[in-house]
Parts: sequence; C-alpha cells; structure tokens
Amino acid sequence: MKTGQTHLFIPGPTNVPDDVRRAMNIGQQDMRASDFGDLTIGLFEDLKQVFRTRTGEVFLLPGSGTGAWEAAITNTLNPGDKVLMARYGQFSDLWVQMAQRLGLEVEVIDVAWGAGVPVAEFERRLGADTRDEIKAVFVTHNETATGVVSDVAAVRRALDASFHDALLFVDGVSSIGSIDFRMDDWGVDLAVTGSQKGLMCPAGLGILAVSAKAAVAAKTSTMRRAFFEFEDMRAMNAGGYFPYTPPTMLLHGLRAALDRIFAEGLDEVIARHARLAEGIRRGIHAWGLDLVAEHPSLYSNTVSTIRTPDGVDAREVIRIAYDEMNTSFGSGLGRLAGKAFRIGHLGDLNEGMCLTALSIAEMALVRAGAQIPMGAGVAEAQRHFTGVATAQPRLRIAAE
Amino acid sequence: MKTGQTHLFIPGPTNVPDDVRRAMNIGQQDMRASDFGDLTIGLFEDLKQVFRTRTGEVFLLPGSGTGAWEAAITNTLNPGDKVLMARYGQFSDLWVQMAQRLGLEVEVIDVAWGAGVPVAEFERRLGADTRDEIKAVFVTHNETATGVVSDVAAVRRALDASFHDALLFVDGVSSIGSIDFRMDDWGVDLAVTGSQKGLMCPAGLGILAVSAKAAVAAKTSTMRRAFFEFEDMRAMNAGGYFPYTPPTMLLHGLRAALDRIFAEGLDEVIARHARLAEGIRRGIHAWGLDLVAEHPSLYSNTVSTIRTPDGVDAREVIRIAYDEMNTSFGSGLGRLAGKAFRIGHLGDLNEGMCLTALSIAEMALVRAGAQIPMGAGVAEAQRHFTGVATAQPRLRIAAE
Amino acid sequence: MKTGQTHLFIPGPTNVPDDVRRAMNIGQQDMRASDFGDLTIGLFEDLKQVFRTRTGEVFLLPGSGTGAWEAAITNTLNPGDKVLMARYGQFSDLWVQMAQRLGLEVEVIDVAWGAGVPVAEFERRLGADTRDEIKAVFVTHNETATGVVSDVAAVRRALDASFHDALLFVDGVSSIGSIDFRMDDWGVDLAVTGSQKGLMCPAGLGILAVSAKAAVAAKTSTMRRAFFEFEDMRAMNAGGYFPYTPPTMLLHGLRAALDRIFAEGLDEVIARHARLAEGIRRGIHAWGLDLVAEHPSLYSNTVSTIRTPDGVDAREVIRIAYDEMNTSFGSGLGRLAGKAFRIGHLGDLNEGMCLTALSIAEMALVRAGAQIPMGAGVAEAQRHFTGVATAQPRLRIAAE
Amino acid sequence: MKTGQTHLFIPGPTNVPDDVRRAMNIGQQDMRASDFGDLTIGLFEDLKQVFRTRTGEVFLLPGSGTGAWEAAITNTLNPGDKVLMARYGQFSDLWVQMAQRLGLEVEVIDVAWGAGVPVAEFERRLGADTRDEIKAVFVTHNETATGVVSDVAAVRRALDASFHDALLFVDGVSSIGSIDFRMDDWGVDLAVTGSQKGLMCPAGLGILAVSAKAAVAAKTSTMRRAFFEFEDMRAMNAGGYFPYTPPTMLLHGLRAALDRIFAEGLDEVIARHARLAEGIRRGIHAWGLDLVAEHPSLYSNTVSTIRTPDGVDAREVIRIAYDEMNTSFGSGLGRLAGKAFRIGHLGDLNEGMCLTALSIAEMALVRAGAQIPMGAGVAEAQRHFTGVATAQPRLRIAAE
Repeated sequence: MKTGQTHLFIPGPTNVPDDVRRAMNIGQQDMRASDFGDLTIGLFEDLKQVFRTRTGEVFLLPGSGTGAWEAAITNTLNPGDKVLMARYGQFSDLWVQMAQRLGLEVEVIDVAWGAGVPVAEFERRLGADTRDEIKAVFVTHNETATGVVSDVAAVRRALDASFHDALLFVDGVSSIGSIDFRMDDWGVDLAVTGSQKGLMCPAGLGILAVSAKAAVAAKTSTMRRAFFEFEDMRAMNAGGYFPYTPPTMLLHGLRAALDRIFAEGLDEVIARHARLAEGIRRGIHAWGLDLVAEHPSLYSNTVSTIRTPDGVDAREVIRIAYDEMNTSFGSGLGRLAGKAFRIGHLGDLNEGMCLTALSIAEMALVRAGAQIPMGAGVAEAQRHFTGVATAQPRLRIAAE
Repeated sequence: MKTGQTHLFIPGPTNVPDDVRRAMNIGQQDMRASDFGDLTIGLFEDLKQVFRTRTGEVFLLPGSGTGAWEAAITNTLNPGDKVLMARYGQFSDLWVQMAQRLGLEVEVIDVAWGAGVPVAEFERRLGADTRDEIKAVFVTHNETATGVVSDVAAVRRALDASFHDALLFVDGVSSIGSIDFRMDDWGVDLAVTGSQKGLMCPAGLGILAVSAKAAVAAKTSTMRRAFFEFEDMRAMNAGGYFPYTPPTMLLHGLRAALDRIFAEGLDEVIARHARLAEGIRRGIHAWGLDLVAEHPSLYSNTVSTIRTPDGVDAREVIRIAYDEMNTSFGSGLGRLAGKAFRIGHLGDLNEGMCLTALSIAEMALVRAGAQIPMGAGVAEAQRHFTGVATAQPRLRIAAE
Repeated sequence: MKTGQTHLFIPGPTNVPDDVRRAMNIGQQDMRASDFGDLTIGLFEDLKQVFRTRTGEVFLLPGSGTGAWEAAITNTLNPGDKVLMARYGQFSDLWVQMAQRLGLEVEVIDVAWGAGVPVAEFERRLGADTRDEIKAVFVTHNETATGVVSDVAAVRRALDASFHDALLFVDGVSSIGSIDFRMDDWGVDLAVTGSQKGLMCPAGLGILAVSAKAAVAAKTSTMRRAFFEFEDMRAMNAGGYFPYTPPTMLLHGLRAALDRIFAEGLDEVIARHARLAEGIRRGIHAWGLDLVAEHPSLYSNTVSTIRTPDGVDAREVIRIAYDEMNTSFGSGLGRLAGKAFRIGHLGDLNEGMCLTALSIAEMALVRAGAQIPMGAGVAEAQRHFTGVATAQPRLRIAAE
Repeated sequence: MKTGQTHLFIPGPTNVPDDVRRAMNIGQQDMRASDFGDLTIGLFEDLKQVFRTRTGEVFLLPGSGTGAWEAAITNTLNPGDKVLMARYGQFSDLWVQMAQRLGLEVEVIDVAWGAGVPVAEFERRLGADTRDEIKAVFVTHNETATGVVSDVAAVRRALDASFHDALLFVDGVSSIGSIDFRMDDWGVDLAVTGSQKGLMCPAGLGILAVSAKAAVAAKTSTMRRAFFEFEDMRAMNAGGYFPYTPPTMLLHGLRAALDRIFAEGLDEVIARHARLAEGIRRGIHAWGLDLVAEHPSLYSNTVSTIRTPDGVDAREVIRIAYDEMNTSFGSGLGRLAGKAFRIGHLGDLNEGMCLTALSIAEMALVRAGAQIPMGAGVAEAQRHFTGVATAQPRLRIAAE
C-alpha cells in the first residue's frame, strides 16, 4: 500500500495548492445568475496580465490546451492556408498533425528533438515567401517532451525582418505563467495555454489569448467551427457569461490561482521557476547525466528531460518511482520512450520539493541500474539553493 | 448577506452530492500512470449501462454537451449533408444553428415552443425522401427550455416505417440518467449528454455514445475535426487513456456518481424522477398556473417550465428568489424570457427539496404580484408524496 | 438509498456553511509556529464581541459545552460550595448532576419542563441567604430540551436586589450567537457555549467567557483541576498558544464562522433567528399543535419543542422523517421522549430551510397518524416571511 | 510568500492523508440518530486492535491526550494516592505536574533528559513498597521531547517481580499506532493516546484504553470527575452514542485512518516506522550530530531530537526552515530549547518525505552556521532505503 504524500513531478497536471483546491470545493451555482460576472469578468482581465497583453483578449474554453490549439486555428485561418511549423518534440509534432487534419498546408521543418525553433530557417523561408503565401507561423514555446524553450522574440524579429504579415501562433501551455512570456512585446497573435500547468489548477480549461490582428482575421476566416466560435464567446463573455455551461469549479480555482500568482508577483514566480530549475539541473549534472535539451540556452525552466545512461531503461526508472516510492515522473514521449524521463518543476513548487524529486530520482536510477553517486545531485542543488558552496564534502570523504 | 443553504433548482448544473464532491477533492495525478485505467476503464463500461447500450461505445470529451453535439456531427457526417431537425425550444434551435455552421443543409421543421418532436411530419418527410438525401435525423429528447420530453422511440418507428437509413442523433443532455432512455431499443446512433445534469457532477465533460452504425459512418466522414476525433479517443481509451489531458477530477466525480446511480438502481432513479416531478407539477397546477409543455404526455420529469400569469414578469420572480431567498430558478430562455421560469428537478433530489422549491416559488410569485394561494402547491405535492389525500384542508378552513 | 440533501433540523450540531467547511479543510500545521497567533489571537477578541463582554476573557477548550461547564465550576468554586440551580429540562438537569458530582451542595428548584428559570423563587432564596452561603447561581439560558429561553437579566436583578455576591453561571450553549445575550450588561460571570450551535462549526470546542470577578475567584478556588486550568490557558493564550494540542481545524472553522457573523452583523443574526423562529412557530400553531414552552415569552428562537397529539408517538415522527425523508429532527429528551419532537432553527439558516422543515414535519406527522392539515403550517410561515396575508386560501377552497 | 507544499515534520499533529481529510469533509449529522452506531461502534473495536488489547475497553474523549491523562487518573485513583513516576523530558514532567495538581502524592525519579524509564530504580522502589502504598506506576512510553522510547514490558516485569499490584499507566500518545505497543501482553492498565499522531487525524480526540483491572478500580475511585466519567461513556458507547456532543468529523476521520492502518497492516505500519526512522538517524549521524537519546536502544521510531553543534542555536534552524523553506520542525522543549530540534517521522510517511526532511534540515543547519556536509545525510538515508551501499561517492569525488 502506498503511504505518505504522493510526489508529483510531471510537467502537468501540476500540484494544486491547497487554497486552490479549497476554492474549487463549492456547491454548484447558476451560470446565468445576475452576479455570475463577479466571478468571471475579472478572470479575463487578470489572465491578460499573465499573457502580458494589453491589447489582446482572452477566451476560456472548456477542454484542454489541445482544444485551444484547434480554436486558434479554426477561428483565424482558412482551408488550405499555408502555415510554417517546426517539429522538435512530441507536442510540436501533434500540433503539425492537427494543422494537417484541419486542412492546412503545413510546411514543416524537422529539427533534432532537443533543438528549439529553427529561427534562421524560419527567417529564410519567410524571406523567400515573397507572395505572402504563409499565413501563419507556429511556435511551440516550451516543448514539454524535450524540455526545450524556444526564442519566440527571435521568431518575431524574423517576421519583422521579412516584413512578413503571417500570424504568429504560440503554444505556451507549459510556459505561460512560469517562464517569461510577452504576448504584446513579441507580437504573438494566438497564445495557447491550459489550466493545469503554471496556472496550478486541474485540467479542464483551455485558455487562449488573441491579438487584435488575429481578431480581424477571425472575421473573414471560413473554417468550420461552432463550439469554439470566438464571436459567441466574445458576445457572452462581455457580461461574464459563456455560450455553453462553463466548468464553474475550475473558474473558482483559477480565481484562487491568479490571486496566488499576483500575491507572489508574476516576475517573482518566473524568477522562482528559474532558480528551482537551475537547482534541478545542477543536480542532474552532478549525476553525470545529460539533458535532452542540446544547449543551456534551450533549458526549460518548467521541465527537464533527462537521458538515462546506456543500458538503463527510463521506463524502469519511472516504474520504480511510481510503484515503490509513490512518485510520478514524466515518461519519455514518442521517440524518447525508454531513453529519457522527465522531471516537471513548475507551478506550486519550492526548494524542498525539488530536493525530494532529486533524491527519489537518485534512488530510482540506482535501483534501475544507473551508476550515479547517491546524494550527489541533492547536494549540488542544496548548494545552489543556499548559496553555500561548502567545503564539507571533502571532509565527508575523508570520513568514509 | 445570504445565509443558509443555497437552493439550486436550475435544470443543470444540478446539486452535486456530498460524496461526489468529496471524490473530486483529490490531489492531481499522472494521466499516463500505469494504473490510470483502474479509474477510467470502468467508466466507459458503466456509462453504457446508463445509455442502455450493449453494442455502442462511449466517449468522454472535456468540454460540455455542446462540444459533444459538435463531435457527433463532425465525426459522422459530410459537408453539405442534408439533415432533418425540428425546432421547439432554445436548445433544439441552438443545435440547428450549429448544424448550419458546420456546413450541413438543415431541413428545419418549426413547431410551437411547448410541442415536442413532430413525429408525423418527420415520418412524412422521411417517406418522401426516396433518394435517401437525408443523412441524419436530430431529436432533442428533453427540450430543457420548455420542459418537453419527446418520443424518440416514435421517431425510430418513423424511420423504420420508411425503411430510411438516416442516422438518429439524440440530444439527451437533460434526460439521460433521469428519464427513460434506451439507446439500443430505440436505435439511437449518436446520443449526447453532459456531466452536470442527471450524472450529478459539475460541468466539464461532454459524453457521447456512438452506435456501431455511426462508427462505420465515421470511417468515411470527411468533415474536418481534430480535438474530438473518435479514432484518437478510441485508440487511447482502450487502455484507459486520453489523447489530451483529461479532467481527472471530473472522472473521479463521475465514478462516485455512477456508484450512486447503481446503488439506487437506474430504474429506481428514473422512477424517483417521475414521482418527484409529478409532485412538482401538481403543486404548479394547484397554483392555477400552466406549464409551457402543451400536453401531459410531453411533461418532462427533469424540468418544468411555468408560465407566469399575465402582468407578472418571470424575471422578477427569479430575481426575488435569487436576491432575497438564496434560490436559483431557471430563467425563461429565448422567446420565453420574462414569460416563464423553470424549476429544475433532476439529479440528486428528494421530496423535501421539491417542497422547498415549491414553497419558495410561491413566495416569489406572490411577491412578484401573482395571485396564487400560498401553501397550496406545497400541500398538493405533499399529498402526492405521502399518498395521503387528507380531508383536513376543510377542517383548516373552518378554523380560520 | 437516501438521495438529495440531508435536511438537518436538530438544535446542534447545526448546518456548517460551505465556507466554514472549506476553511477547515486544511493541512495540519505546527501549533507552536511563530505565526500561529495570527490565526488564534483574533479569535479570543472576536468571541468577546459575541459574548458582548469588554471586561471578560474567553477560553477555548477542546471538548464540548459540557467540558466548559466543568471548567467553569472547577476553576472558580470550592468543594462543598452551595449553589442555587433550577431544573426545567434535560440540560439543566444534567448540569445539576454535574455540580453534585463535582462536590457542590446544590440547592435545586424543580419547576415544570416548559417553564423557565424561576426568578421570583431565586430572588426569595437569595434574599433569605443572609449569610451568603450561596456561592453561585446557575441559569440555563436556553433549555435546548424544552425550547425555553429564560430571563438572565432578571436573575441579575434578583441578585442585585438582594445585594448578593454569588457568581452568575450561564449555560448559553444553544443561545449565544443566536439569541440576545449580554454578558457585561447582565453581570454574567461564567458564560458557556460550544462551537456547534450558533457558531456554525462542528462540535469539538467548548467556549467559556469569564468575568473579572470570576477570574478573582479562580485565584483561590481549591477544586482539583488540570486539563482545564484557567491559569495555564491564560498564560499560553496570550501569545496565541495553548497548553495542549489545540483542534486547529476547528480554530480555522471558527475564524470563518466569526467572519460570517460579523459580515451579517450580530444584531442582524439575532433578528434573523427571531424572524425565522416566529415563522416556524406560526406554522406549528397552524397545525393546531402546542409547544412545550408554556408561554410566548419563553419561546426559544433557536429550537421549538413540539408536543405530538395524543396517540401519536413522537419517536415515530422522527423515525419517518429520518428513514424516509432524509431529515433529522431532534428527539424528545428525558421525560419528553415519545411525547415531543424538536425542530432546531439556529445557525446558518434561511426562510427556505424553515419551510422545508415545516413541510417535512407535516408529512411525517400525517404519516405517523396526526390529523394535521397538510400545507397549513407552511402557508402560515410563508405569510409571515413575505408579510403578505393573502386571501387566496378561500379561493382555493372554493376550487376544491 | 510561501509556495509549494508545506513540509510538516513535527511529532504531531502529523500529516493527515488525503482520504482522511476527505472523510472528514462531511455535513453535520444527528449524533442521536438511530444508525449513528454504524459509524462509531466499530471504532471502539478497531481501536482495541491498535492498542493490542482483547480484554480492555476503549474510550474516545473530545479533547486531547492531556485530557485523556486526566481521565485516566480521575477515574481510577483516589485523592492522596501515592504514585511512582519518572521524569526524563517535557511530557513526563507535565504528567508529574498534573498528578500533583490532581492531588496525588507523586514519588518522582528524575533521570537525565535522554534516558528512559529507570526500570531498575522502579523495581527497587516497588520492591521496597511492602505496604503497597504505591497505587500506580506511570510510564511515558515515548518521550516526545527527547525522542526516547522506554521499555514498558520491563516495567511490567518489575511490577511482577515484586508481586506488586499497582496500576500501570502508560502515555503512548506518540507511540501507539507507530511503535510496537502491547497492552495485554505488557499488562498496561491505562493507555493514553490522541488522534493527531500515529492515528493520522487532526487533534481533538483523546483516546484511552482501560484494562479490566482499571475498570474495577474505577468503581471505587473517589476523585471528582464528571465530563470524563467512564460510567457515563460506557453506558452511552454501548449503543454507539456519547454523553456529550461528539466531534463527529473526527470520528469519520478516525474511521478512514483505521481503514488505512488495517489495509497496510499494523505490523507493517510499525515496521515502516522503524525503517524510515533508521534512515533518518543514519542521516543525522552522517552529519556528525548527536541525538539527545542516550543509547540506540532508546531511539524513538517516531521522533528524533537532534542536538545542534555548539554555537548553533536550534531555534535559528527552526526559524530558517519555517520562514524560508516552508518547513516545520519541532522545537527543543523545556531545557532543550535552543539546544535541540526535532524531526517528527510518524504517521503517514514515506521515504521521499524523510529525504525531504533531511535535505531541508541540512540546508537550515548550514544556514544557521553548522559545519555539516551538505547532502551527506540524504545519501546515507538513501543507501539505507535502497539497500544499495554504492561505491559511487568516490567516483563523484574524483569528478570534483
């Protein structure tokens, strides 16, 4: 029987803070009540701050980030539109597949899993697209499968350098609210996230921010859509209502989660993610293991994807942690299955939790056959967190 | 300040039982864990019992009933397909609009709000459709706006009488789990419901049952879709997983709700709804007021839509109940706005709650200017519930 | 299987508001933490307002009102002290028994169950006690068994009229926070309540307010005590701590409950209890039944004890309500067993709930064989609540 | 602002498992309902298994362990009775004080804080007590202040060796349910515990097991008592009821906690505590620090009290952990204030949590000025937990 706290270190759903859980534990209520907007209207405004947009608008969709991807596409593009995408992990791959299914002509650039968005190649293609055939550029800001963060601002610069008018779509599901994201500054037109990552709520809400430019595009878009129609949502949202029965419980959770984010400060939240992620990474490197992310500039502050040593099946690491240590790590997805496992380090997190993750990972790796020094990763992370680069390890060795 | 219990008598979201609320109050978990299917696989099987299908399959969609409507259409029909629909309330109207938006050619039969599906006219049109141009017939089983239940079995007979092969779509959002619904017996091909009505959970899940015939149609359907693709769901669901991050909290709630339904017995649940609804209706008639539903055979056992007397604004009844009595009644929708209010009587309900609804409605009606006899509706419902047709009212009058 | 809301109409534990429940659903915490007082210190101050004392102090005891009774006695009296008490119900009787067990010499005045504190007789005895042998006078402010509220201010006047120095003990378990109670104005020395009545929390806390005079008496009291020692509590409470592990969950609940009370306003809470109780009583009288309380001046605003008609076993009324209607009424206690049942109407309550109680009681009474007019009590209460004395009942009769 | 999980490592209240929290989140109910015993009667039986008694009986007292201490004394002893006690920590000291306050003549043996019950000296005194003046012997099984477990079986042997008839009182508040405790085998007469330690519930219940011999003594005991009277409780408990309003929420929590214990197996629970405690201790020793407990045979499996190095204020360690790391460690109590801090490792616990405790303690100690090798304690505990005594630390050193 499993005892004690469940240690959840997947890159979403993330640990829901106790006050968010409490906020969701409510009786049902009339989503057409005269005062329903007291709950909801503020959410739209506050989410804009999280997306860092003043000029955009935000929609809340019952569903998931995947649903929000679809809503972004079907509301703003036209059948057969050409779009430019890159594939460097499971989630960017799924987005490509969706775009194809929805009838877009997708120009895909495949790069290594572990690389980020190929900005130079994007710039080349955009520059070559003199007839403006590319209607949209899609970027997976944080590729949750590989633990790679891409440079969205650079994509914007590439667009601007080509004086290209394509819409800029960004999947920020595992970055927004945790990693610096600047919708207005970066000229993002459609930014997608979900409730279950940096926003510290359970899954169930897709969240979409739409720029003024995208809103104009939506007026003439001819793709078929109904459930996720912007017009319907905009009309109802103005009064705090929805064109369908909303998941009210999650709206209460989101309210509490946003209150937490603003109480801590969004900049502070982002800085905390950076600090904790660096501790995790130093721990991983102390084991002598590699991240899938190819370069430090690509390291994600929300998820680290760790290659297991040759001969060590990452699935076994995950199984041991889950079955024997009441701990969930993320699995290697797609081509990384068996070769990597992931530590999610986003949302409601602190130093102690990161050390828990490292200490359990160390035990699971060793049990799975890895030759890694027990405690070494924890110690490196502790040094990072305390700022104390103690000389004691040597003393300790002498004592052995 | 509002004090005491909130009295919720809208036709959904319904009151969530305490054990369902408790079941949802959980820590997050890995939706890719090896034992996740222990929670989920049984849900699909058990939902089949609720739909009363042995040969169909069930899908769970993050979203709402509206999303499930869309999934039913986009997975099984083709652009430009002709479909036969009737419009007799807000929700059948919305479904017509969705079908049109999604590119179907909708043959709409408008009947009075208060009538049900026009079976004879359906039969006539189907008989006349000798070239099988009609690809699907849509029926709103329980029109939540008017409180009208329609005869789905009769529609099936009409299809069979014409040897017509059209798919039969049924919106059972506010009937399934509360009013007798028989997917296999009635030859329903696509049956739609949501989590927040008879299934006693919060909103957030669309639930769709698909017949074998519909599954075949899905193989050749050319409508664009991605998020709600049956194939993806079927492939993942087999192992208990989902092609997107599922709203796990709701899955736990659904588990607890299904356990309740089976503990009570589905037949008993349906009988309870009938008994409680009859009490509510006797109360309404004791006030001297009319239901929007035109005939007793059309009375819904989940929602009663009540016409307010001339000169009494139904919105004022609802406002008084909400602002002064901590009570939510359903509003008159669309053309019924101001002319009717609704009492939802479905889900986790008992006699006491029905009497609460009636007693508060009486006070709100009187306050809003209606000349109705205070306590009369309650008394009639009590007689129905106790089976005691007391002669005491006369005694009481003598005592006055 | 029981379905729908559980209707709880006992005189405690009362219905806990949803926000109080949420407040209690917390992780455990260190009761010695440096900031624990942030939670607790305000409780003591705010409870003083509920007791309406500026000069007294408040103690929170893990236990119940019964424990607080004991703490009041053992901290301020001496073995063999003579105390004056009256017995007019189950709870005043139990207090007499406790006083005797703890070694006091109890001068008991027995009056009818249904009467209140015999002020004139108290005054006579106090006047006759020229040697000040009576060290304390005990009053059960609201006798929960009979639904009788007594005149504490009159007892104070009796004491003052005799220039008597006895301590005044008041059991306000089912009154404080619901019925007007004025510790300072009435010169109460030891006032006892619990968490589970007007304070809308679960059971588990005894709450005791102690006057300056009682605090002086405590310094020389020689009764044996340890767990409930005032000195220990006072010393620790000053910093927000406790001499034992406190039931922190309840302290959080109490915080939320006090916030509710102050948001509504204590005067408004008391007025609401009066208004709702009057509705309940008018309903009872419309049935033609009697309260145990002998006179309207004695009617309790928190609980009504109703005599069932001859031949109707009150236990059967309660059983039917509980087994068949998911409803709890209070039973007749002691000599009232089988002869009376009780409706608790205190705490987090509103009009709709009172009508629920009456309508269910009507059905249970009729089922148990009482000849009462169905709906009549509800109608009277509705008229009281709406202020509309409709003439419609006559119309309705004509229609029958 | 504090983020992430709160790390609670005090020796009670302990972390409440999520299912126990859910079980407590209930609506209030009638504690006199006909089926209340369905909840409660099993609790008494199941608690007997936890105490490992077949012949004793169990009482549940609203209050705390301190209240249960008092109940044990006042129900079975007489004023002026001589009792034999030892003082070796804060809690044994408090128990001595209570016994004195309640009017017992206490023969106290003071031993070092860090030692356990002085069995030989007890045996000597009992042997010398030829007139059987000692009516009871008190043992603090697990001294929560010092982290010392005493040998109760040896005290029983000492009593038997002297053919002494004194009652054997045992404070098992922080041992029962976590450390092997055998009421019948050890001839314990009064065994005290609380809800908030090994029983994994919030504070609020004192729990007392009473041997047949103690029950006989209770019949003639002349100490004053009322609230905690065994007779009253026994009479009511037989039907599942209580002589006061019980803290029902905690009874539900206790039910869920007992279900957990039996699902894991009591022996397995005890073995788990031993295994986890050993990991913690190896970690502490790897730091080069000492436990207050004087000898390994005295090491408690529920709490470790750690002496901080000279010059390191233990209060500062606790403050840093609390303020900066969202972590609660136990403080040094009484004479240990500032000199020691405590790690509670009992209740719902697993390996990951123990490593969290050690890793945070390491950081807090280093920040407070201790020269301890970062990560060293974690590594030792990991080796213990995995059974892998890796040679890798050397590899790691080479890499530095």
